[in-house]
Order: sequence, then structure tokens, then C-alpha cells
Amino acid sequence: MFVLGIDPGLSATGYGVVESGHPPIAVLAGVIRTDPDMAMAERLGELFAGLTQVIADAKPDVVAVETVFTNQNLQTAISVGRASGVALLAAAQAGLKVSEYVPTAVKAAITGDGSASKAQIQRMVARLLRLSEPPKPADAADALAIALCHLRAAPLEMRR
Amino acid sequence: MFVLGIDPGLSATGYGVVESGHPPIAVLAGVIRTDPDMAMAERLGELFAGLTQVIADAKPDVVAVETVFTNQNLQTAISVGRASGVALLAAAQAGLKVSEYVPTAVKAAITGDGSASKAQIQRMVARLLRLSEPPKPADAADALAIALCHLRAAPLEMRR
Repeated sequence: MFVLGIDPGLSATGYGVVESGHPPIAVLAGVIRTDPDMAMAERLGELFAGLTQVIADAKPDVVAVETVFTNQNLQTAISVGRASGVALLAAAQAGLKVSEYVPTAVKAAITGDGSASKAQIQRMVARLLRLSEPPKPADAADALAIALCHLRAAPLEMRR
Repeated sequence: MFVLGIDPGLSATGYGVVESGHPPIAVLAGVIRTDPDMAMAERLGELFAGLTQVIADAKPDVVAVETVFTNQNLQTAISVGRASGVALLAAAQAGLKVSEYVPTAVKAAITGDGSASKAQIQRMVARLLRLSEPPKPADAADALAIALCHLRAAPLEMRR
């Protein structure tokens, strides 16, 4: 199973595809950035086109998206909401099922600690994927963490 | 000039198309509703399909969207952000320019009072469009108000 993890943001959206297995394998990862000088609608268009391309290239079986509901001001929440809305839409347009995870769930799934630091998460992502060092940039590492979180959560979901 | 006004929401997104003129003319208006029992990504897919259809039917020259940055909790802001992100994307995919207006700007453009009530706005929308009574449902009337706001603001914008 191939899982596409997405860490949505208007300026930078991280993506990472992981294939399930022992160990799980990082297939691709990267960041889609949008130009802050462009109009909002065009930025969302760029993000949608970028994610649609990633889905076409990587052909994931399922999509996992990190959703943040706390620690934000309203302006940031609207902006993150727009980016996550476009990410969910890109998945829906490709006929893919989407699971959403809050940051504490991602942290707990990767490190066993829902309040783990960014650095801890990145080290564990490298370890789980047998990489010599944490993937860069950080948004790509976060997206791989979200995909790994889904691989660990999915068997539980199926048992329900 | 045909203006498509959009009042975005996840459960209900109002839309209204107005043709500029003296008086301006309401071309069409309605509400796209999404089923709360459906998965989030599918609801956004429905909203995107609905707005894409409205754009194909009405062939507007420009899109005006109401954007709310205040008076919301974070959960609502994320949800409204997702709906507005999908609305902006539908416009961008159709190659249309989008203008965003905050609620006080819409209220001030329609009634001269940035703190006007919903009922005042709806009565003025009916009056400006020479309708015998306020358009229903309320989300459609709000969308027509946003389109009218753009018609009143656009000449100013062009003069800049």
C-alpha cells in the first residue's frame, strides 16, 4: 500500500509517499511552494496543480492529511483551511479516500509521545524509513511522518 | 459585466449572479448544500462540482467572494476556510479574477452602514435589484449582496 501524507500550508505544503512494509519505504517527498506575490486564487490553483501532479506520479492508494485545530489565530486558520481544503479536493478528484490526523496523533504514532518535538519526530522518521539523516526540508519530513502515522493507524481502523 | 457573488460555507454556499446596469439585474441565485454525513473530501468535491457548474452556466466575467476573518472559533474558521478555498479554486480553474470582501465592506456597500442587520441587507438587495421581496434562501440573498458590492466597488478599483 502506498500512502501519500500531506502537511498543508498556503506558502509551503509538504508531501511524502511511503510504501507499507518492514521497513516502510520512502518513495518520494517534497514541498509545493506558492508565490506570496500571486493572487490567493492563483496560489490555490498552483497548490492544486502540484498535488494533482504528485498523485498522478506516485499513484497512492490513500491520502493522509494533518489537520490543525488549535494554536492558531483566525487569519492563519483561514489560510491553513484553504490549503487543506484544496489538498482534500485534490484527493477527492482522484477518487482517493482521505484520513485526517491532528498533530498530537501524528506525534504519538511516530514517537509514542503526543508532545514530541519537531526534531524528535524527524529523527524517528529517519529511523523508521532507514534513512541516514532526517529528510529535508522539514515540511517534507512532516509529510512522511503523517504517511507513517496512517500506516500505523490504518490496521486499527480496519479492525473496527 | 456579469458578477458571480459567493458566500462560502461547508454546509451551504450561496451564489448569485448579477448583471451590471441601471438597475443591475439578478440573473440567477441559489445555494449549494453538502451532506454532513459524507466524508469531508467528498463534500468539498460536491461544492467544487456545484460551483464549477454555476460558472459554466452563468459565464460570469468576475467572481466576488465574502471572506470572514472574525467572530468565529477555530473549528469554524478551518471549515469556512476550506469552503472558501474551494470557491477560489473553482474561479481560478475557470480563469476568472477573484475579489474578496469582508462582511463589513459588503454591508457598507449595500446599505451605507457596515453594521447593518441581515434583514436590512436583504431588503436593500431586493430594492437594488427591483425584486418584490428579498430573495430566498438567505444564503442566496447574501451572495447577491456580495455581487452588488463588487459592482459598486469595482469602478473605484479601476480608478486606482
